[in-house]
Parts: sequence; structure tokens; C-alpha cells
Amino acid sequence: MTPHVTELPCMKQFRLVDGCLALGGRPVTELAREAGGTPFYAYDRGMLDARLAELRGCLPRAVHLHYAVKANPMPAVVEYMAERVDGLDVASAAELELALNTGTSPGDISFAGPGKRDGELAAALQAGIVINLESFGEMERVHRLAEAAGQPARVAVRVNPDFELKSSGMRMGGGSRPFGVDAEQVPELLQRIGDYGLSFQGFQIFAGSQNLSTEALTAAQDGIFELAYRLAEQAPGPVKLLNVGGGLGIPYFPNDRPLDLNVVTDHLAGHVETCARRLGDARVVLELGRYLVGEAGVYVARVIDRKVSRGRVYLVTDGGMHHHLAASGNLGQVIRKNYPVAVATRMTEAETGKASIVGPLCTPLDILAEQIDVPAAEPGDLIAVFQSGAYGLSASPVGFLGQPMAAELLV
Amino acid sequence: MTPHVTELPCMKQFRLVDGCLALGGRPVTELAREAGGTPFYAYDRGMLDARLAELRGCLPRAVHLHYAVKANPMPAVVEYMAERVDGLDVASAAELELALNTGTSPGDISFAGPGKRDGELAAALQAGIVINLESFGEMERVHRLAEAAGQPARVAVRVNPDFELKSSGMRMGGGSRPFGVDAEQVPELLQRIGDYGLSFQGFQIFAGSQNLSTEALTAAQDGIFELAYRLAEQAPGPVKLLNVGGGLGIPYFPNDRPLDLNVVTDHLAGHVETCARRLGDARVVLELGRYLVGEAGVYVARVIDRKVSRGRVYLVTDGGMHHHLAASGNLGQVIRKNYPVAVATRMTEAETGKASIVGPLCTPLDILAEQIDVPAAEPGDLIAVFQSGAYGLSASPVGFLGQPMAAELLV
Repeated sequence: MTPHVTELPCMKQFRLVDGCLALGGRPVTELAREAGGTPFYAYDRGMLDARLAELRGCLPRAVHLHYAVKANPMPAVVEYMAERVDGLDVASAAELELALNTGTSPGDISFAGPGKRDGELAAALQAGIVINLESFGEMERVHRLAEAAGQPARVAVRVNPDFELKSSGMRMGGGSRPFGVDAEQVPELLQRIGDYGLSFQGFQIFAGSQNLSTEALTAAQDGIFELAYRLAEQAPGPVKLLNVGGGLGIPYFPNDRPLDLNVVTDHLAGHVETCARRLGDARVVLELGRYLVGEAGVYVARVIDRKVSRGRVYLVTDGGMHHHLAASGNLGQVIRKNYPVAVATRMTEAETGKASIVGPLCTPLDILAEQIDVPAAEPGDLIAVFQSGAYGLSASPVGFLGQPMAAELLV
Repeated sequence: MTPHVTELPCMKQFRLVDGCLALGGRPVTELAREAGGTPFYAYDRGMLDARLAELRGCLPRAVHLHYAVKANPMPAVVEYMAERVDGLDVASAAELELALNTGTSPGDISFAGPGKRDGELAAALQAGIVINLESFGEMERVHRLAEAAGQPARVAVRVNPDFELKSSGMRMGGGSRPFGVDAEQVPELLQRIGDYGLSFQGFQIFAGSQNLSTEALTAAQDGIFELAYRLAEQAPGPVKLLNVGGGLGIPYFPNDRPLDLNVVTDHLAGHVETCARRLGDARVVLELGRYLVGEAGVYVARVIDRKVSRGRVYLVTDGGMHHHLAASGNLGQVIRKNYPVAVATRMTEAETGKASIVGPLCTPLDILAEQIDVPAAEPGDLIAVFQSGAYGLSASPVGFLGQPMAAELLV
């Protein structure tokens, strides 16, 4: 009789109250009432704090920690993180607005994205944030807009490195990419930045995300700093800012092992020391999204129906792919794997058999978990999808089939 | 020198104006101004009419044609279709509201979905539409709610058939499924429907969707009618309604051949004749979504940047996966294939080389087309994604990375 909860390591980070999953000491049944019903996302302040404390405890003090808003743009989360990190990274004008509303200093906000519209660039110039240039064309537009508005342009160069981040969940650098400027084209870009008199801030060198291999991450650090030193020699001014990306992954699936954070931060510490010698006052920025918020969130839906079809049990819930595309297996996954999912209202009950947990949509894509071991769940029970704090609601087709929106709680 | 337009058969359904793709005789450049900018979806009334006329021309007159709102719930499209079809099928309370607002008679509206909430069932009872029961549990809830409200309950039984629809893009029946009631359990359900005095309307037997094989579709018809006759013998009253699903596919990819519609409708005609003898006045309903609207729509985005990274050309647009998840390859596709995509502003220009067309999001998932042949496109040009009239905007993560919403035009 294995208790249900021990099966999935990430669940151990949560407390139980009378056998019910709890966030911030409050059972999800209570949170459901506060949310006005189900489905809802809940994010745990305590777990956000714990992750930040863990990072701060092993990161060199000189490293600036940035939060990538795109991971979870819920305004209360952005506000909470803004008070605890050293800067914010945004990917659109709407995210910029969120970031500015937190009171974060414009100099600590950067804007990356391969397709920034003129209106977005103008907003960024007006706010005085750092624009990470992704192409020659974008630099020309920034120059033109800054001249027209009579505003200075703080720019950094997003570099597409000449190496790849191995073992990455999402490769975003190395080889041919739409992101950033190829390393070998950067010297020419730097020359023009100087010619135009743009205010050069430094570099963003980002190789990929969702990586659980310390070997790959430390190798990427080696490549990133080495490349930064090379490019700095061609820069029109001192490097004030070196955004080394992040890429730290979190475990989603049974074979994923949590990252050994100390190996990554110790290695980074060595580079930061060298960097202080080679680039003087350059601020080294570690930009993290998923790693900061991903494990602190759950998605909760209610079982509406329990049915048996040809020997298989289905728990049909009021939530699904329209709120949690990633858990349904449709956000970049080639092979669908179950996210960690549990019956939140029966966390200490023994499993009695297998069930598939599906959503209310009339499509076979609407799956939250396929054939997992569950206790005897009934309509009314709550289902929790763990590891849902990042790329959840904002990355989902919320209007699909006219289903209601999910609530979001920061508890 | 192949003209750009001939490459993709589905494009031939559209006219050009001065080399620019046009809908309803109006070039997409003009539509972009009307939409207040890009990106936008545009749906062509003339093509909706043409598809309906084609269907009506070869469907037996006795067959009722229903539109499945979920394929495209834009209110103007639903209104347009409602005036031209015989009924609407909805998948949520929000879609029910859309359907009722068109003035469609409640008896011609049916509601299917494996996870209907009590509030949705109550709304359906209040409106007097037909509820397609998907489980014993749902029947109990309908009975309880109808009794509590003192309202009659018009119910049909959604049957999970005991055969599969072969070659289907999405299998939704046969084997173990969350949809409907297994055929072998239906007699017991019918008994209870009789016991409870619910107003029995008939059956919905739906095997799958997006099927391009006439062989598979006609075989499914054989199975569906055969099953309906068997189940009718156990019904608590006459079968007034027999929804035989749809399943008709449209071609998306180079190897997809358009369906030979006449084969399907001729075969259906035979069954409809037999059905009239065996089930008397039963209304046979063909429920179509994608087949009615899918080919009549395009998604249009503007090129913001053209960049070359290590020998490959990227056209970065202001639209992408956040508006068109299916075209990005993340809506159920195991292997990503390019939707038909063209440079809408240069339809008659010869191709000059390959390019990848990507969106503005900071993720490698944001792809509209990989390595397709295009004419010399520049920032300002418009890109069109064809076959985008169904499961487009409503099935996409519109809030992802804080990008603006797409406009929708019915022209």
C-alpha cells in the first residue's frame, strides 16, 4: 500500500492538510472556494521564496538575478518576483507594461524577441529600458525611431552563439536561428552601433532552456564567457551588462533528475571572477523564468464524471488543454508524457487502479494524464497538475470550445 | 520560372488582384487596413457559400446539415452559417449562447461534450435544446436538474461505436474513449432514459474527424447506420434524430488529396433511403465543422524583419503560434508539417529561394513555415497561411508572451 503522494518527487515540496494538497498551508478545497470555483492555478509564495533563497545562497553575490516575465506573467507574480530579483526581462510591449508597473528601474529591464514591432520599440525607447537587438534590421529601426523621437537608445546585442547548448529541452542558440545575431556578424553590428551613437550596454548570449545537464550548462557557460570576451574587444564601449541566459531546467517526467544547482553556480562563480578582471564593471545577469516559478504552481480541476469505457476508467474534469496546453502534451512535445498529476483530495489514500484524466473538450487531445495510478476518485474530487507555475495558463488556448477562463491565485 | 501561386492547390480557390491575394475581391493589403493592422484572420463568404452549394448539390434532400460551432466560433461566421444550415452543434454554454443568439430553433441545436458542468446542463435544459448524453452519470445529473427545474429534458445518446473510423486524422470513436457511451452499454442507458421519462430524441454516432479516405468514411457510414438500427430496437421511443457525425477532411499537406465528395454523399443517400424505411421519420443529421469553414479562411501576418543566419533566410512576422497553433505544428501533430503558406503580396512573382517564416515569440516553437520556396520578400510584405478557417484563432494560445490579439474579418 504505497501512499499516493510518494510516487512523484516534486509533490514532496507541498504540505498536506487532512490528506488534501495544500499551498501556503491552505488545502486546495479551500482555495477552490476562494477562486470562485474550479479550474484554477495556484502559486505558492513560500516556494517562490525558497527557490530564490536557494539560488541566492549559492550564487556569487556579484551576479544579478533577473526574472523572465514570459514564464508567468500573472501581475501578482510579476510584482512579487520584481521585489525579490534584480531585474526583469520582457518579450513584448504588454510584458514591458507589467514590468514598469512594478516600479523596477528601466535600466534593470531588458526586452528581447525576434519580431519587435515599431510600436514596441518606441515604447521601449520611451521607457528607457535596454533593447536586446536581434538583427541588423532591428538596429536600423531602433536608430531611426530614436532619432525621430530625440531619445537615447540603450541597446545590447543578443548573440546567436557559434556553439550549441547540448541536452537542452529547447535549443535557442547555435547553428542557424531566428534569435539574435550570429556571433560572426556581431563585430560588424557593433561597428554600426558605434557609428550611430547608440548607447551600447553589452551582450545577451543565450543558448537554450529547460536543461537538466550540469555538464551541458557549465560547458555553455565556458562558451558564453569566452565569446563575450572575444566580442568585447570589438565593442564601441565598455560592456556594462552581460546576460548569460539561464537555461536551468526543472524535472517534469519520471526520468528527469533535478538539477544539481551547486555545480552550476560554482562553475559560474569561477567565470564571474575572471569576468571582473577581463570586463571590469560588467554586470553578469542570470536570466531565469521557469526555474524560478515552475515548481511553485499547480493547476487544479474538479472531476465532473467518472466513466468506464471498455475496461478503462476516465476521470473527466472541468479543466484541460485549454488551460494547460503543456500538460496535454501539445506545447512542443514530440512524444506525449504525463506531467506529475494526483488526486489532490486523496493524497494519502492508496491507489486502487489506473485512470486517464481528461478534460471537457470534444477532442482526443484534451488529456491531463494517461493511465496513471490513482486512489478511488469520484465526481467532486480535485485533480492537481504539478510543475505548473511556468508556461501554463498564458501558453494555453484559453478560448478553445468556449470554456470559461481559469482563475489564478498567489497564496 | 514557376509562378509562386501554382504550388499549392488550395490557393487556386482564391482570386488575385494585381498579384495580391484577395478575399471577396479585396486584396489582403486592403483588408489589413480595415482590420486596423496585422495579424488578422479573414473568412470568405463566397467560399462558404460555394462549399455549402457543393454539399447541398450532392446531399440527399432529407439530410439535415449542421454546423459544429467549435470549428469557428466567430459570431459573424456562426450567424452566417446559421442562416444557411439546418442546425448548430455546440460544445459549451458559451457556444450555446452564440447558437441561441442566431435565432436557431432550440430543437435544431445539440450539445455534446464529455465534461458538461451542471450549470451548462441547466442552461441547455432552460433553452430546450437537445443534450447528447455522454455517460450514465451525466444522464443522472440531467434527470436531477430537469426534475428540480420542472423542465422536460430532450436527450440523445452519444454512442461510442464498436468499430473504428480508419485513416482518421482524429479518432474519436471505437475502442476505449472518453466520448459517448460504449455501444454495448447503450441498451441499459436507454432503459433508464425510459424509466426516468426523459424525452428521447435519438442518437449521435461519431467515429472521428479530418478523414480524407472515402473508403473509410463510407465504411463508417455502414457501421453507424447498422448500429443505429440495432440500438433503435431498445429505444424507449421512436428515433427522431440520427446524427451520423461528419468526419470529412480537408487537405492540409502536399500529399493530401481533396475528398471525393460524391462518393461519400452517394453512399449516404443509399443509407438515408434504407433509414427512412427502418426508422420512419428519423431526421438524419450530417454534422460538419472543419469541412464547411476550413478552406474559406486565411491567417495574414506582416513581415517585420528579414534576416540571414548561417546561410538560412528567416522572415520574422508579427503573427505566429499564439494566433495559429495548428500551423505551428503544436495542435496534435506528431511530426510538424508546413501548412500551405505564401507571400500574399507577391503571389505572381517567381520564387527566388527558400525561407523560414517565424513569429515574434522568443521560442523555437513559433514557426509558420519551415524552409519553403518564396519570392524575394521584404519587411512590409504580407504572409498568408491557407486552410485556416477552422480551429485557428479559437484554438490558439492568444495571450502567449503578451502579444496583441488578431482581428477577424468576414468578407
